[in-house]
Amino acid sequence: MAIRRRKISVIGAGFTGSTTALMLAQKELGDIVLVDIPKVEGPTKGKALDMFEASPVQGFDANIVGTSNYEDTKDSDLVIITAGVARKPGMSRDDLVNINAGVIRSVTEQVVKYSPDCIILVLTNPVDAMTYEAYRTSGFPKNRVIGQSGVLDTARFRSFVAEELNISVEDVTGFVLGGHGDDMVPLVRYSYAGGIPLEKLIPADRLEAIVNRTRKGGGEIVNLLGNGSAYYAPAASLVQMAEAILKDKKRILPAVAYLEGEYGYRDLYLGVPTILGGNGLEKVIELELTEDEKKALDKSAESVRNVMKVLQ
Amino acid sequence: MAIRRRKISVIGAGFTGSTTALMLAQKELGDIVLVDIPKVEGPTKGKALDMFEASPVQGFDANIVGTSNYEDTKDSDLVIITAGVARKPGMSRDDLVNINAGVIRSVTEQVVKYSPDCIILVLTNPVDAMTYEAYRTSGFPKNRVIGQSGVLDTARFRSFVAEELNISVEDVTGFVLGGHGDDMVPLVRYSYAGGIPLEKLIPADRLEAIVNRTRKGGGEIVNLLGNGSAYYAPAASLVQMAEAILKDKKRILPAVAYLEGEYGYRDLYLGVPTILGGNGLEKVIELELTEDEKKALDKSAESVRNVMKVLQ
Amino acid sequence: MAIRRRKISVIGAGFTGSTTALMLAQKELGDIVLVDIPKVEGPTKGKALDMFEASPVQGFDANIVGTSNYEDTKDSDLVIITAGVARKPGMSRDDLVNINAGVIRSVTEQVVKYSPDCIILVLTNPVDAMTYEAYRTSGFPKNRVIGQSGVLDTARFRSFVAEELNISVEDVTGFVLGGHGDDMVPLVRYSYAGGIPLEKLIPADRLEAIVNRTRKGGGEIVNLLGNGSAYYAPAASLVQMAEAILKDKKRILPAVAYLEGEYGYRDLYLGVPTILGGNGLEKVIELELTEDEKKALDKSAESVRNVMKVLQ
Amino acid sequence: MAIRRRKISVIGAGFTGSTTALMLAQKELGDIVLVDIPKVEGPTKGKALDMFEASPVQGFDANIVGTSNYEDTKDSDLVIITAGVARKPGMSRDDLVNINAGVIRSVTEQVVKYSPDCIILVLTNPVDAMTYEAYRTSGFPKNRVIGQSGVLDTARFRSFVAEELNISVEDVTGFVLGGHGDDMVPLVRYSYAGGIPLEKLIPADRLEAIVNRTRKGGGEIVNLLGNGSAYYAPAASLVQMAEAILKDKKRILPAVAYLEGEYGYRDLYLGVPTILGGNGLEKVIELELTEDEKKALDKSAESVRNVMKVLQ
Repeated sequence: MAIRRRKISVIGAGFTGSTTALMLAQKELGDIVLVDIPKVEGPTKGKALDMFEASPVQGFDANIVGTSNYEDTKDSDLVIITAGVARKPGMSRDDLVNINAGVIRSVTEQVVKYSPDCIILVLTNPVDAMTYEAYRTSGFPKNRVIGQSGVLDTARFRSFVAEELNISVEDVTGFVLGGHGDDMVPLVRYSYAGGIPLEKLIPADRLEAIVNRTRKGGGEIVNLLGNGSAYYAPAASLVQMAEAILKDKKRILPAVAYLEGEYGYRDLYLGVPTILGGNGLEKVIELELTEDEKKALDKSAESVRNVMKVLQ
Repeated sequence: MAIRRRKISVIGAGFTGSTTALMLAQKELGDIVLVDIPKVEGPTKGKALDMFEASPVQGFDANIVGTSNYEDTKDSDLVIITAGVARKPGMSRDDLVNINAGVIRSVTEQVVKYSPDCIILVLTNPVDAMTYEAYRTSGFPKNRVIGQSGVLDTARFRSFVAEELNISVEDVTGFVLGGHGDDMVPLVRYSYAGGIPLEKLIPADRLEAIVNRTRKGGGEIVNLLGNGSAYYAPAASLVQMAEAILKDKKRILPAVAYLEGEYGYRDLYLGVPTILGGNGLEKVIELELTEDEKKALDKSAESVRNVMKVLQ
Repeated sequence: MAIRRRKISVIGAGFTGSTTALMLAQKELGDIVLVDIPKVEGPTKGKALDMFEASPVQGFDANIVGTSNYEDTKDSDLVIITAGVARKPGMSRDDLVNINAGVIRSVTEQVVKYSPDCIILVLTNPVDAMTYEAYRTSGFPKNRVIGQSGVLDTARFRSFVAEELNISVEDVTGFVLGGHGDDMVPLVRYSYAGGIPLEKLIPADRLEAIVNRTRKGGGEIVNLLGNGSAYYAPAASLVQMAEAILKDKKRILPAVAYLEGEYGYRDLYLGVPTILGGNGLEKVIELELTEDEKKALDKSAESVRNVMKVLQ
Repeated sequence: MAIRRRKISVIGAGFTGSTTALMLAQKELGDIVLVDIPKVEGPTKGKALDMFEASPVQGFDANIVGTSNYEDTKDSDLVIITAGVARKPGMSRDDLVNINAGVIRSVTEQVVKYSPDCIILVLTNPVDAMTYEAYRTSGFPKNRVIGQSGVLDTARFRSFVAEELNISVEDVTGFVLGGHGDDMVPLVRYSYAGGIPLEKLIPADRLEAIVNRTRKGGGEIVNLLGNGSAYYAPAASLVQMAEAILKDKKRILPAVAYLEGEYGYRDLYLGVPTILGGNGLEKVIELELTEDEKKALDKSAESVRNVMKVLQ
């Protein structure tokens, strides 16, 4: 009957996973278990301890532990999967897909074993296919297996627009459908600054440039870092979704959702507007699309299906 | 006459520097300039951009730029120096001191050139000597050159105590004098949980173990990470000091301060309790010490002087 | 050269004024001076002291003083005027206007005397005319005299929509032009939930009902309270505008702005979309209106002019 | 299995009750039900609605409803009782006790009926006796019936000390035992600024004056307000305790606790240091007292027993 703190497990203790853990703890969303493979158990424990040592000065209460033992994730309310490899030079896309699908399968099996009632949130790329894999492996109902892509894409879009107009990021909204990154289908007509459609505030060519920059936003960071990929914005995006779920906020956020007829697709995970709350993905919101938008979304869905074929 | 945002430059874009930048931005303490050497300008820009892209979902407004050009730091209110190398196998302590002193000197010259009115906060190790070096190079009055050590040491101590007693980190305080890490002089009699002296709550041997663990707190993380050192708690500590200064909070925090007779020392930077506010280090608080404490502090001061001798 | 805390004076220590002071302090936006007439100096001091006594547990640092002496407001960065009377039974609208205009004049004279460089933010009703009166009395440039109306109107609208759709208030935006309350000109086509136009989510008659409820939102609270008017949402609205200014956030927010040709009006204060930042009201954003919208706005402007005529 | 938001009921919709509701909502600690008697149902609903309308601009998600129907409090996790009358001129203390005890009894019966598993937090004065009354009426185990007194007393003490020393309120701690207000037993030797015992920082006569001011802190506000009593600091104090419980923070806070031998008392509710967490009052912390302190505490306990005698 006692009130207990929520419990959140983050699988994968790389930069994104550990930054996610930090941001979850800062918001006091629950106790944190940071999990990675036995080979990096030391660093995983080290990051968790370092974060915990930051808690007195940051002013949050959260137990944060690093581990390679899934038993420690027992009875998690939410599990965030960031594990997986990034594409390396010489690695084919299909190799990448197969490697990460293997990771997702083995991680999901462990997660389900210890937290049969949890909600799973997936970041691992290619995220649409990997979320599907987690869904299939878990046997969970669709509302409890969700992927992240659109929150990050729109976060990038929003920051570029705010910079362009020299206004607060809080007043810019963006809207995107479909696959992550290159495959994204931006709906600029649903994107605003202070409620004003962006087309009225930004010349068409500049807006086009911003959309393209967003599409390649992940690559821009990869190129700058030289060795690694983005983690601050991806982690922040996961945490926004996590907060919506753990506080039952019923936020309207883009998410990678299992479709059963919505937008004309079936048995597919794809980025769409949703409502996130205490039941996980509580609803897919359907919008009428223009012919061009539907065509672009079809292409994006096709691209996701192609990735999924690799997994037969 | 317009109200302008504060400006904070963080020198050194490694893990600690970039985590510091993130935490400053999260608190909307000002716009952030993240600076590192030209060789890593790409990664520096990449981290800054990634953070900026997180701002719409984290809900903060801050311009965050990465650069290798000190002109971009112009008119900073506060400059935080995290630059410097970590000790590597085969490197003598004296080598380390000389290398980092060179870094501090060249960084400080640039900082002073573009922000002659700023407050400087130093993290680089060995921090007592490096803060002295920044003081000497800058020509700034002593209140505007401050080092970080005790906030981190007590943060670690507090987190260990909270864990030991299974209570909130918010209710534990710690107290430390002298040099950083191994040289620290913990005043356990000034350390409490909920205002209750720790000696009344924790058996002497356990308390002793916690003090020793704190003393070696940096090394514990180094050993776990295998390749690198702590950055979450160090960054959080810098940010707590930065917040005290930028919001003129007049907080009582341990800091590495220039002493002119306090505690019986002169022309030395050493960790002591201070008041941090809009004027930087506004006051050194002097406490009566027991004979044992004074002896330990003398040893710590001696150790700092030995490091400074390396710099002749 | 020291970094000093911002200073904010709140004129009028009634429920709205004191709630505003609390919310400003909670956000650590600066030190607070709460001012009211000598007759209620005791209660004014009492509320300020009670708030200050809350600060250790709420975790904010702010000096909060209550006073009837304008000298204490010296060098304020921002002054928020909530002073004025509410309409009582038997009081004509013209009487109300004249009484409050007198209050605004005498308050503004004192404010200007002690804080010649401040930004003035007006809540007193009828707000369009009262902001004009403050502008005229102060002799300040137009960017430094601003009124609040649309933030509150849209806050109410947003909360009603969130309730209707059972979603987070964070994801609903509203848009309103013109006078406050009854005279407001809602632009529903610029109002969204998660970026989706509300017309697509809410049946026309329900949306119409929500707009009407918003229009009478102030009256709804007055009727429920029986004796008094709303203060939580008005205070929160003032604080959002204050935060945009004091942190130079450059937020797009509706505000009562001095018009010099925008939307076809001159020498008039009226609610329009603006950018609020460190210079106060930095820009009026002009939108194309439909014929119907323009007609409604004309009517709203006419209504404001009628109130102003009372003041000759 | 879904994650649901916590639910908190606040009984009594006066200034303290409604300010408590606001502060709970601001921290997103749960959905709020604000309850008062049918006679003031309008104002109760009005305040709740006004607060809810503030939520979009304050940025919190919380359903807030006003009601006079206890059914609406069903399945609350925490119930905070602020209901009761204040002493009026001509009213004897015994009259006050009997009236408020009646209020507590009828409120508690309703609370228990709809939320048999909740934790009850009492503010109503005289708080020690009223908490006992709630305990007796509820039949709840002692850990689930708690009173507020010491958090407020120490908050006042802390703010006075911070003002005296011109330092941050965050760095001052206070310590108090026994009854509320006049009967409080301050343990100045357990009170610190930045960990430094206050006796070393403040002259004895000034410290004595601060203790006395704290003791009469409630009266000081009553005198200033002229008509009413403090509500900001009392509400903040309740919310700090509520947060400790709802987030299972295990904070060390003074609370009015049921004693079964601790400090030598039995079958008595009295202010002592405790640990507050998800189980409510998880532990009473016992300290050795000096003879003088024990004598003062005996007097305080005696005074509480005298009040309880009024209740037969």
